[in-house]
This record gives sequence, structure tokens and C-alpha cells, in this order.
Amino acid sequence: MINVDISNVWTCVSLPELLGEEKGIFDAHNLLCTHKPDGPDFAGWLGMPDSVNARLIHSIRRVTEKICANSDVLVVCGTGGACLGAKSAIDLYCGAGRNLLGHMPQIYFAGDSLSSRQWLELNSLLDSRDYSLHIISADGKALGPNVAARSLRWMMERKYGPQAKERISVATLVGSPLHRMGQEEGYELFPMPREMGGSGSMLTAAALLPMAVAGIDPLDVLEGAAEAYRELDVRSFDNPVWLYAGARSVLSRKGIQKELLCVFDQALLSFGRWWQRTVWRQECREGLGIFPATALIPDDLEALDQMTARGRGGVFETLLHFDPIAKKVPVEMDWKDYDGLGFLSGRSMDFVEQHVMEAMTETHNGEGVPIVDLQAGELTAQALGQLFYFFELASALTACVSGVDPFETSGSPTHACALTHLGAPTM
Amino acid sequence: MINVDISNVWTCVSLPELLGEEKGIFDAHNLLCTHKPDGPDFAGWLGMPDSVNARLIHSIRRVTEKICANSDVLVVCGTGGACLGAKSAIDLYCGAGRNLLGHMPQIYFAGDSLSSRQWLELNSLLDSRDYSLHIISADGKALGPNVAARSLRWMMERKYGPQAKERISVATLVGSPLHRMGQEEGYELFPMPREMGGSGSMLTAAALLPMAVAGIDPLDVLEGAAEAYRELDVRSFDNPVWLYAGARSVLSRKGIQKELLCVFDQALLSFGRWWQRTVWRQECREGLGIFPATALIPDDLEALDQMTARGRGGVFETLLHFDPIAKKVPVEMDWKDYDGLGFLSGRSMDFVEQHVMEAMTETHNGEGVPIVDLQAGELTAQALGQLFYFFELASALTACVSGVDPFETSGSPTHACALTHLGAPTM
Repeated sequence: MINVDISNVWTCVSLPELLGEEKGIFDAHNLLCTHKPDGPDFAGWLGMPDSVNARLIHSIRRVTEKICANSDVLVVCGTGGACLGAKSAIDLYCGAGRNLLGHMPQIYFAGDSLSSRQWLELNSLLDSRDYSLHIISADGKALGPNVAARSLRWMMERKYGPQAKERISVATLVGSPLHRMGQEEGYELFPMPREMGGSGSMLTAAALLPMAVAGIDPLDVLEGAAEAYRELDVRSFDNPVWLYAGARSVLSRKGIQKELLCVFDQALLSFGRWWQRTVWRQECREGLGIFPATALIPDDLEALDQMTARGRGGVFETLLHFDPIAKKVPVEMDWKDYDGLGFLSGRSMDFVEQHVMEAMTETHNGEGVPIVDLQAGELTAQALGQLFYFFELASALTACVSGVDPFETSGSPTHACALTHLGAPTM
Repeated sequence: MINVDISNVWTCVSLPELLGEEKGIFDAHNLLCTHKPDGPDFAGWLGMPDSVNARLIHSIRRVTEKICANSDVLVVCGTGGACLGAKSAIDLYCGAGRNLLGHMPQIYFAGDSLSSRQWLELNSLLDSRDYSLHIISADGKALGPNVAARSLRWMMERKYGPQAKERISVATLVGSPLHRMGQEEGYELFPMPREMGGSGSMLTAAALLPMAVAGIDPLDVLEGAAEAYRELDVRSFDNPVWLYAGARSVLSRKGIQKELLCVFDQALLSFGRWWQRTVWRQECREGLGIFPATALIPDDLEALDQMTARGRGGVFETLLHFDPIAKKVPVEMDWKDYDGLGFLSGRSMDFVEQHVMEAMTETHNGEGVPIVDLQAGELTAQALGQLFYFFELASALTACVSGVDPFETSGSPTHACALTHLGAPTM
């Protein structure tokens, strides 16, 4: 389970201040777990890992086998947490260069923009290759995925004829326009449980299918999430998510509202985007909330050094790191020692990384920057489930403590406005 | 040239307020252009485009030809603005999927982290392929690039023997440890002019070489930058960069200090990271400055809708977009019209994107969010030079107006601390 170390926030937060959040977090946690039959459904994802049944896992595996057998490429077309979540899980587990390394099927993501340049690039990538399509859209309304899915379905019908439907799967809410499409066209259909909400869709078939195609076992991911569900349900500061949410709440109250998620591998940059969007969605409402950004260490370190020198920028840092891998990569010898790092030769890169992390903590905390340390353990499929569950819950708790309902949604006003501008016929 | 439209900031900023910044920007612009012979060199990059000579361009072309002739892969090993700048320019101009599309040589970036997982992935990518190495490090001290460069040089010496040096180029400051290495080992050497500073290194050989390998002509880039240098040197609000920097300064003064750079194509996400780091480095000092983050539209739109609903979050948005490409991609027909977008079929994706942008502006500005619109014209090599120059200058101006010296650097305290932790011998 994720280990939360807040020993470097005490420069800004006192123990009584943290304990002062206890009641708020307790109430927030209870509120999150309370189903509201009449209100917007949102709490389902909390108990979600226990609600996935064997039949769903079986469907995911069956469709995965089919895709792996008949496709060079899987195109995931969608938007929202499930899509970016699946991408970040695959980057994290398989490396950001998975598509380049010849692992089949390759996995591309579409529908996140309306750029023609990006679309034509995808077309070139699909040229003369066999592919399948997985459409993710909770309400089936988002413009980006719908425009992309129209073209992809059309291309597949032209290429595969009546067999096209064997290559298309849809994850959507029961009753959405896409649900009807899936039924009528005979696509593989993965209904999203309505009570999952957007944020929880990371742990539904929508995201689990592309992850499975990349070789991440859905049962393992759900097992990790279920374990997190049990361990993070504890209602005290023994609960690591309480520590993290508590520290964030105190810091936010004190005006320290810019959070830098510091990651140590290119492969975590898409996780950083997923996290950023989750925080925007759940916490940043009506001028409240923590404003998130992601930094890659040591690449961004010099910039952060400049930013945190003489502190007081309202910034705190959250370091997210995993156990080192078993294989050690040594720093090489260079007998001319141009760079003066000869004293490190034979040491492992992990050793150097660990000390950079410690030096960063010492230096920045010395300037008064609070630092939360998240040690996420070994990078396994189970750890992925825990990771996403942890950050979703932490964000939801912090939002609730500050009086914001993280799952209240009035839909997308921009979407409605865009339809009017585009001249949509009035219903 | 980039066209700046601030008509959607007037909800928050009055004309007298903007004009009140005139004196400050004027002084800041003069200050930036004043060379300080005794102080830290920083102003060189302002006049930089005029200072590149034909010999340098010739060297870049010669090395580029050599790399293209003998390598499947170019590994760019470095950190800082030049490295991420080169990556973002290549993503922007060639598409983020360039390496997947079989364009040779592929270009990988290393040295931005100390992750063994990321390192082993690069090793797999290089396995049994011919490659060249381009090392970028201004002071030659950063740990990430040095550790990676040690291993890469060792691997190349084992693979190519004495011919290895034909495949290695170094861009570094005169007098740095890497400069000595380049000279003694007989590598191709691109000395970085000291007065360019870190931020200007985007327009030196360090970044121009990998861009040239990707097919971006260095002369075109510099021509664009030179044009920007002339047009953006105007000392009045006729200057687009004055408009942008002026709006940012007023907004920052009013506590609206979170800037969301909104981009409309996956390929601009790395540009977003480059920009974010530039703003961190130049503006975010001692608690001052605008805090930057990047959003992809429409992918992040629903989250931004939630965030900006009932405004007042201290956030403003900067939309960055280019002219549509010549080739039109139509929205496809679907005679069953499941998604209800049939009224759009035959329209182009650009048409839809344009209206989403307008709807976003209308909706968010209606909630009181100030929006700056940057129309960057056609996406050419010249436009790249303009783009980077524009954002570097805007950031430096805003910093100077707020009383911060954007180029003052006390080195990286974390780096010094890490060396001590790692047990470096005292000099």
C-alpha cells in the first residue's frame, strides 16, 4: 500500500492544525460513502472493486484475446478519466515507448482533440494495418470522440464489411446514444454502471479492456483496488489517504494551494495529466481547491530550484516514487572523468536518483516548501489499482472537506454552447 | 506573426489599468536589452537571430547529413530549455507520432531522468540499430545527462570502436567540462555562446541540430526568430508581445495568477511542458509570478467547465492555435445518426474545432474568466522560431515588470546538495 510521509510538512503545518482536520475528514469520508438515491449517483466507485463480477472479467478477457489475435493496433477512442487513466496505466506499467518496442497490438488514443493534423497522423499509422476500435464515452455526447468514432467506424466498414462489428467495442452508460448503437450494430458492449461517476470509471471495463490488451491483468488491478478499498476505509490518521488529504487541507487553508506532483520517469507524465484533470474536476470549483501541475525530476529540478529559492510561493511538492526495479543499472566508468562523476562509477542509477530525491527534499524544505512523500511500493498491476484509487479518494476527500461536492456536475456548458454555435437542430 | 487578441480580458482588466503597465513594460524591455558586462550575461538572446553566422549553419547541415546517412536513431541527451524545446518543436512540426511513422532517423530523448526503467527501455530501442548521440548541457554539470552520456559513450565505443567519435556531437558552453571532452575526444563541437543564457538556447545549435535531423531547416527557424526579433522590438502596445505581457501583468497584480495554456492537438503537449518550465524559471521567484499549467481541448474541457463555473478561481486562459491545414477532414456520414451529429456531416473537423473554441471563449468568459487568444498563423519552420521567441520574451518581460530578474541564477542548490549526499570528493 502507498506509504505517506508528511515529516517534511511540519515546517508549515502544526500537529494541532492537522488534528483539527480530523472531524472534517471524518464527516467527508462518511458523506462520500453515503449513497444518495435521489441525488447524483457518485458514491458507487468507493465500493466498486467488490462489485465487479466474474462475467465482466470473462468478457474483458474474451475481447482481449480476439483483439490480440486479429489486430496490429487497438484504437481507443474517447475522453475523460477512463481514457487518460488507461493511457497512463499503460505508460506506467509498460513504459512510454511501448508502441515503439514492437509489442503487439500497439495502442493509440484518439478523440481527445479535433485536430485534423492529429487525425491524419492516426490515419497514416493505421494505413494497411489491421485494427480494432474501443469507444469510451460515458454519456455518448462528447464531440471529440463522436467525430473520431464516426470516421473510424466508416473506415472499418469499408475495410472489413460486415465483419467490422467483430472489431468494435463500446463502453458507455446504459441508455446513452452509444448504448443503443452498440446494441443495434452488434458491437461488444460494456455498460458502465451509472453510480460509478466519471472519476471511478478508471476501474470499469472502459479502462480495463485497453489495459488488458497491453498485458495488464484486470483481476490484478481490481484486486489492488479492492485491497486499497479496505485499507483506505479506516477512519483515522492511521489511514494513509487521511494523512495526505489532511495535509492538503491544512496547506490549502493556509493559502499554499499550488501542488507540484514530482515524478521521476517520463512514463509518469501521462499519469500526471490524469491526476491534474482529476483535481481540476473534483476540487477546483468556485475559486476553491488546489491548483495542480506535474514536474519531471531531475529534468525540471533547476527550474524548481529557482522557483522555491527563498520559498513562500504558495507551492508544496508531492513526490511520487516506486521501489527500484530488481535489475541494477551501473554508472559507467570514464577513466578521463571529464564530468567529475568518477566517484559514482559502479554505483546504480537508483542510488543516484535516491540521493537527488533526498537532496531535493532537504534543499526545498530548507527554504520552507512543504513536501509530501508518497512511496507507492513495487510497480505491479495491483499497485496500479491502489494508485488510482488512492488519488481519486484523496482528491474527493479534500474537496468534501472544503465544502465542495466533487461529483456534482451540471454537464458541460461549453458543449451545449458549441452545439448551438454549430447549428444543431433543436430537439 | 502571432496575433494577440485580448478582447476577452476586458471583463477583468480596464484600459487604464493596461495602459498603466506601459511605463513598466517600457523599462523592462530596455532593461532586457541592456548588456551588463559585469553581471550575469543574459541579454544576448534578444539580438541572437542576427548573430548566427553562416559557418554554424553549415556545420549543422553537415552533421545532419552525416547522421541521416549513418544512423537509424539520434539520441539527444540533455536537460534544460534547449532539449525540451527541440522535442516540442519536433512534435509540433512533425507530429507527436513521428518516431512511429518510420521517418528516419528516429529521435529519442535521454538524460531527463535517472530512472533505470526508462534507461532499459532506451537500451531496447537502440538494440541492434545504428545510432548517433547529441549531448546538450550548458554547464556540463547536470547529473541526469552526465550519467546517461557516460553509458551511451561507453556503449558506442564498444560498438563502433574508434569510429564512435564520428557519431557524437556536443553542445556546451566554452570552458565547460564537456567542452574539454569534445575537444580531446574529437567530437563535433557546438560551443554555446555564453550570453545566450539557458532560455535562449532554444535558438542555438544545441536545439537546431536535432530539429534539422527531423527535417526542420535551421535557417528557416532563425529567419522566423529574426523576424520576430524585429517586429517584437517595437516599444508600444502595437507590439503583440506587449499586449500579452501587459495583460498578464495586470491579471497577476489582481491576483489572477494561474494561467492555463489551452492547446488543441496532442502534439502541443510537450510545448506546454517547455512553456511551463520557462515560466517557472523566469517568473516564479520568491512567491511571485504566474503559475502555469497546460490543458488539451476538448479533452480537458469538461474539467475546465467545472473549474470555471461560477468563475473567480484566480484562473485565466490562453488559447494557442494555428491556421487550419490545407487538407480538409470531413465529419463522416452515419445514416442511423446515433450520436445526433448528423447535421455536421460533410463539415470539416476544423469547422467543429473553431466553434468549440468560440463556445469555450463565450462560456468561460461569461463566467468571468479572462481569455487571451493567440493566433500563431500557419505552422511553418519560421513560425516555430517566432513562437519560441515570442513566449521567451513575454515571460522575461512579465518577470521584469514584477521586479524579478528572469536570468539571475544562483545555480542549482539541489545539485550541490546531491553531490555532497552522494559523497563527491571535495575539490
